[in-house]
Amino acid sequence: MEPDMAHRKIRAGIVGGGQGSFIGAVHRIAAELDGQAEIVAGAMSTDARRAEASAQAWFLKRAYTSFQQMAEEESRAADGIDVVIIATPNHMHYPVAKAFLERGIHVISDKPMTLNVHEAEELVALVERSGRIFALTHNYTGYPAVRQARALVRQGEIGTIRKVLVEYIQDWLLEPVERTGNKQASWRTDPAQAGISGCVGDIGTHAENLLTFITDLKIASLCADLTTFVEGRALEDDANMLLRLENGGKGILTCSQIAAGEENNLSIRIYGSKAGLAWQQMEPNTLIFKPYGRPQQILRSGQAYMSDDAKAATRLPPGHPEGFLEAFANIYKMVISDIRREATGEKPLGGYPTAADGLRGMRFVAKVVESSQRGSIWMEVE
Amino acid sequence: MEPDMAHRKIRAGIVGGGQGSFIGAVHRIAAELDGQAEIVAGAMSTDARRAEASAQAWFLKRAYTSFQQMAEEESRAADGIDVVIIATPNHMHYPVAKAFLERGIHVISDKPMTLNVHEAEELVALVERSGRIFALTHNYTGYPAVRQARALVRQGEIGTIRKVLVEYIQDWLLEPVERTGNKQASWRTDPAQAGISGCVGDIGTHAENLLTFITDLKIASLCADLTTFVEGRALEDDANMLLRLENGGKGILTCSQIAAGEENNLSIRIYGSKAGLAWQQMEPNTLIFKPYGRPQQILRSGQAYMSDDAKAATRLPPGHPEGFLEAFANIYKMVISDIRREATGEKPLGGYPTAADGLRGMRFVAKVVESSQRGSIWMEVE
Amino acid sequence: MEPDMAHRKIRAGIVGGGQGSFIGAVHRIAAELDGQAEIVAGAMSTDARRAEASAQAWFLKRAYTSFQQMAEEESRAADGIDVVIIATPNHMHYPVAKAFLERGIHVISDKPMTLNVHEAEELVALVERSGRIFALTHNYTGYPAVRQARALVRQGEIGTIRKVLVEYIQDWLLEPVERTGNKQASWRTDPAQAGISGCVGDIGTHAENLLTFITDLKIASLCADLTTFVEGRALEDDANMLLRLENGGKGILTCSQIAAGEENNLSIRIYGSKAGLAWQQMEPNTLIFKPYGRPQQILRSGQAYMSDDAKAATRLPPGHPEGFLEAFANIYKMVISDIRREATGEKPLGGYPTAADGLRGMRFVAKVVESSQRGSIWMEVE
Amino acid sequence: MEPDMAHRKIRAGIVGGGQGSFIGAVHRIAAELDGQAEIVAGAMSTDARRAEASAQAWFLKRAYTSFQQMAEEESRAADGIDVVIIATPNHMHYPVAKAFLERGIHVISDKPMTLNVHEAEELVALVERSGRIFALTHNYTGYPAVRQARALVRQGEIGTIRKVLVEYIQDWLLEPVERTGNKQASWRTDPAQAGISGCVGDIGTHAENLLTFITDLKIASLCADLTTFVEGRALEDDANMLLRLENGGKGILTCSQIAAGEENNLSIRIYGSKAGLAWQQMEPNTLIFKPYGRPQQILRSGQAYMSDDAKAATRLPPGHPEGFLEAFANIYKMVISDIRREATGEKPLGGYPTAADGLRGMRFVAKVVESSQRGSIWMEVE
Repeated sequence: MEPDMAHRKIRAGIVGGGQGSFIGAVHRIAAELDGQAEIVAGAMSTDARRAEASAQAWFLKRAYTSFQQMAEEESRAADGIDVVIIATPNHMHYPVAKAFLERGIHVISDKPMTLNVHEAEELVALVERSGRIFALTHNYTGYPAVRQARALVRQGEIGTIRKVLVEYIQDWLLEPVERTGNKQASWRTDPAQAGISGCVGDIGTHAENLLTFITDLKIASLCADLTTFVEGRALEDDANMLLRLENGGKGILTCSQIAAGEENNLSIRIYGSKAGLAWQQMEPNTLIFKPYGRPQQILRSGQAYMSDDAKAATRLPPGHPEGFLEAFANIYKMVISDIRREATGEKPLGGYPTAADGLRGMRFVAKVVESSQRGSIWMEVE
Repeated sequence: MEPDMAHRKIRAGIVGGGQGSFIGAVHRIAAELDGQAEIVAGAMSTDARRAEASAQAWFLKRAYTSFQQMAEEESRAADGIDVVIIATPNHMHYPVAKAFLERGIHVISDKPMTLNVHEAEELVALVERSGRIFALTHNYTGYPAVRQARALVRQGEIGTIRKVLVEYIQDWLLEPVERTGNKQASWRTDPAQAGISGCVGDIGTHAENLLTFITDLKIASLCADLTTFVEGRALEDDANMLLRLENGGKGILTCSQIAAGEENNLSIRIYGSKAGLAWQQMEPNTLIFKPYGRPQQILRSGQAYMSDDAKAATRLPPGHPEGFLEAFANIYKMVISDIRREATGEKPLGGYPTAADGLRGMRFVAKVVESSQRGSIWMEVE
Repeated sequence: MEPDMAHRKIRAGIVGGGQGSFIGAVHRIAAELDGQAEIVAGAMSTDARRAEASAQAWFLKRAYTSFQQMAEEESRAADGIDVVIIATPNHMHYPVAKAFLERGIHVISDKPMTLNVHEAEELVALVERSGRIFALTHNYTGYPAVRQARALVRQGEIGTIRKVLVEYIQDWLLEPVERTGNKQASWRTDPAQAGISGCVGDIGTHAENLLTFITDLKIASLCADLTTFVEGRALEDDANMLLRLENGGKGILTCSQIAAGEENNLSIRIYGSKAGLAWQQMEPNTLIFKPYGRPQQILRSGQAYMSDDAKAATRLPPGHPEGFLEAFANIYKMVISDIRREATGEKPLGGYPTAADGLRGMRFVAKVVESSQRGSIWMEVE
Repeated sequence: MEPDMAHRKIRAGIVGGGQGSFIGAVHRIAAELDGQAEIVAGAMSTDARRAEASAQAWFLKRAYTSFQQMAEEESRAADGIDVVIIATPNHMHYPVAKAFLERGIHVISDKPMTLNVHEAEELVALVERSGRIFALTHNYTGYPAVRQARALVRQGEIGTIRKVLVEYIQDWLLEPVERTGNKQASWRTDPAQAGISGCVGDIGTHAENLLTFITDLKIASLCADLTTFVEGRALEDDANMLLRLENGGKGILTCSQIAAGEENNLSIRIYGSKAGLAWQQMEPNTLIFKPYGRPQQILRSGQAYMSDDAKAATRLPPGHPEGFLEAFANIYKMVISDIRREATGEKPLGGYPTAADGLRGMRFVAKVVESSQRGSIWMEVE
């Protein structure tokens, strides 16, 4: 416990996310958006020149080329970091998280949580032992409208959930761009760095997480059909699956990275015995509420009628669009608040995805891949 | 061949569709919309009083209470009908079609084509023997934007089709309205009148038909999960299924009659190696064309840049919305034109769903139901 | 009074609207859509061959080349027409209406009502003297969502109306198509046939009519700025105007026929002390209701919660789009019902635009043109 | 010139924007978003306790209660601020700007630029004399889609601009909230703090600025009708106006703060001789391009086909929504870049609204108010 943490910004470090990375800058902006944290150290590349240049571009105080060294030095420094951000390819998530957790440093990590289920199980145990905060950036749960959707479900406005349609479709891998220098495409289609799944691991896990976040229902079983449409690609770039939820509800999850003309279309529709809900990430400030027999309602983030949870995730008045970065920053906002609480002995409040969510996501990926490999048969999930 | 048919309206009769029926009035309007046909006779109810009242409401010349009698008398009358419209519950489609085809009268029938596959096979043979025109009112294929979608696929603008997402979701059976006097709900949830399937037979067949109409691809195999959410209902009211197309493409088809807040949401999205397409029945005059890497285009019915086939299905300038009835009437327009051609010995041009489509639809329904009953396993679809 | 009219379709004749005309076919479809009327006679062209061909294409019983002759013969025939449809250029509206009204035949006329205010005043008097029904096809008032909007205003849901934004913008005259064979463009830009105004007379009158229909408020004064953007055109093709309403509310009306990319965009937004409303003709089945401080509601035609007036204008269940023709047919439906009522001595129910609306529209046009010609000054209206 | 500025963040101070202020937090986030600047000092309130608390909440190094004192001390400090942010009510814009400019500190100021035209003229001269950068936060010009719109106009894709429809409508002053403790409402409706105009000064100026930014056309003359709908309010809360552009094009500008159900609806539509454009702030990442006779195109920020200027204003891949804060930050990004350039003797690149824009805006407001006061007559602008 550090008594003076209230009088300063939280200090963060970052592993990965160096120059040219999309997600590195996202983490930086999201972490610092509310003025409650600053990134002061980074191991942004193992290449010394790139590590240095990346750190300079952000005016970081300390640059490393090794995350182990960073973990050691930061954990000993008087002004060392409070939290580390993991923005590496998947295969590095676990070793990096381990190095920092073991040295008492909180962790905010990209998803999917680990390379495989085994690592995920170990990480869950490690987090528990460490007593540190571990947050997983299923950032789409940070949108106010998503939190409003969850609130409506909890309030019983939807009734018993019967049907869920969730999709996450893009087109950025429609061509074999991994062979023409797209660095992110390169590692995301490489099993050694990405794990056993491409599309499902990358974006299907967001869809699974969103479904469970809003409905508070787990997937009981699934039947998945994975396809690699681009010749020579080592991992699937498209997936369709049938879902059965733990409450008897049914669902569909589809994700794709070869859906021509789709940008970043994460959408969910939920149908209950009393009402329906629809949300689309590309128009994120709107939630459509569809009570049976009554007019549909357009719920808008920032409005006074929104739930407290949605309001807490909103910075601007209605009609001033907040987007991807703001939603991402909402995850950070909750984590930073919990880091402060933890420092003064208060109980963390949560509200963001945790290691348990990450483990569930990794098991989901494993079952999806197994289902498809065994002829798209039904698999129980846990 | 009747030489003077060019100088008069086509004469139509109708079986079913009496007062209180939704679809009866739809057929009347669609048949007569272009001023090329008139309904002159009807066996609109087996109840004499209702049959008479229904006929009077439409100013019909001849009212019957028996379709057999109607078939016999009309086929012998000098001014007898050229074509019969079948607007009955499913179990009557086949016997009525048979009665009129055997007497040389063309048939326009509601879908699904018959009560089961066996009847469908017989009907296909019967149509062939009769030499008469048989059209199935998969009316959604009548929309100009749907025909434009097909034209774009045929022109190669979409490339190889990889993924198809088609859905048809409604909420009119969310409550057990079949027990509270909704006549259509009553027969559509009764296996004796509707057949082995509820939701899939009623609207899933439209989705299947639309998919094949636009893509010219058949479903090779499927895995279906049917659910009856409303207690006590004898047939499924919701269905999710995975599809594999004959060309290696993958797909999802979902249909529901318990999706709270959904009106009549038939939508299709098609993704190919070059571009995507999206169409929604509830905003039918718009087709979104999504070429990879270029701006999406909003194609609008009535515009000069539309295909000839789309233009032929359009009556108004752009921005003057045409809807469900006009699309339905487009099926009639093509059938009426073919009836005239047939009368003068010309080859019918088609363009509307036929008995072959109806048979494929019935086989689709049978496989869907079998898949679900056997534990949602994969089934080949011929 | 004709006692047997209940047992037959209403008989209609048409003047103008011959082959190649857009609006002729619209009238035919709208008149016959509900199976309550049939067009049996026409003076569709003064060119004998074209008149004959047009009549044959519609299987009319009687073709004329002179509307005077038609008026005389039809008024004397045992099976003569009950009502005449006027589908000519503007300058013929008045003489044709006069000829038929004076012979006791009801009239349905295209807008604007006459060539000028003087004719409009005479026509109002003539209609009154004749005791015949006169309906003006401000067809956009036929949409269920428009009628719902009026119902909400009447019920006080909007509060005191403060601001109205109405627009009607198209692009069909962006190029000088009147010089390259577009027949409609030719007469609509010719003062001798169209009157003193182009764009305002053609579509601005629809906007004015819609405003007053929904709000029940008249325009008290206006300031208009008319422009002819296409060189050599004799009448304005664009207009902007400020409005002051009789209740102190303010408004804007803009109309254009040179707004690139606009099809037939008639839209209205109304803001009151309690709520707002928005409707767009190109997505006509949706009305957005915007209560202050509460979620916006999406009101949809066909739903049970709609007003009786909206329901009476709806033929299909929700989600089955009805469009321009159906709205047009709703005007006919009300007129036909009144023709039957009139025949049995019942009081007509109205609900459709009348000669009084037509006169108000003509005065509006006159003031708009005068305002603009005098330097876009403010003019009192009436 | 400070040679080492490249190696540190730009230091900013803020005047106004203390706790409870909406716009203060917006400036902080926007200034710091790209990691190139940090706010280190503030005179956020004249109330000492509030000034201190506001500064602490942001972890500022130096808190002042007087902007004059701040200007003096910061201009002398070794680590003094490079730029000041003005986030006060309108009447303070000019004195604060003056104080800092005269001490060689760059200025970023809220709009409208000053309390009146006289101050605006003085400020323009002062900026010129000072050689400092002065940027006005007409933040909506920061959206990538707005910059794309300007690029399309410049490339000639729209042709000669004929008609512009711009609106900015809200409902936050529908009730007299200035009397019930809404602090922003209180000063915005007070002539002593807001100036001679309420609605037009606050949001109408954004609309005017957007119009000119995209089209590069000035308003030549206007006719305005201002209304105060809420009783007892001292300034107008609604305005409608006709515009004539310097090139002969025509336009409409409407703004309102009493338009029930409207959040922050700034929208613009531009119609040229070749194509149209439409953009709405509430769905800011989409620009509709409407070439005459061809399909409309949906241009999306982040796509490779966008202009360089639009791309430079984009941080995320397509489909990852960027919103109000990101657009605001784009203004800062350009200003910060120019501050660095200025420090090394390079010519500033601009791209953001300047004092000249601010002066034009103030003259616009003055003419609007005069027009309305003199009976809504036409006024030349400049």
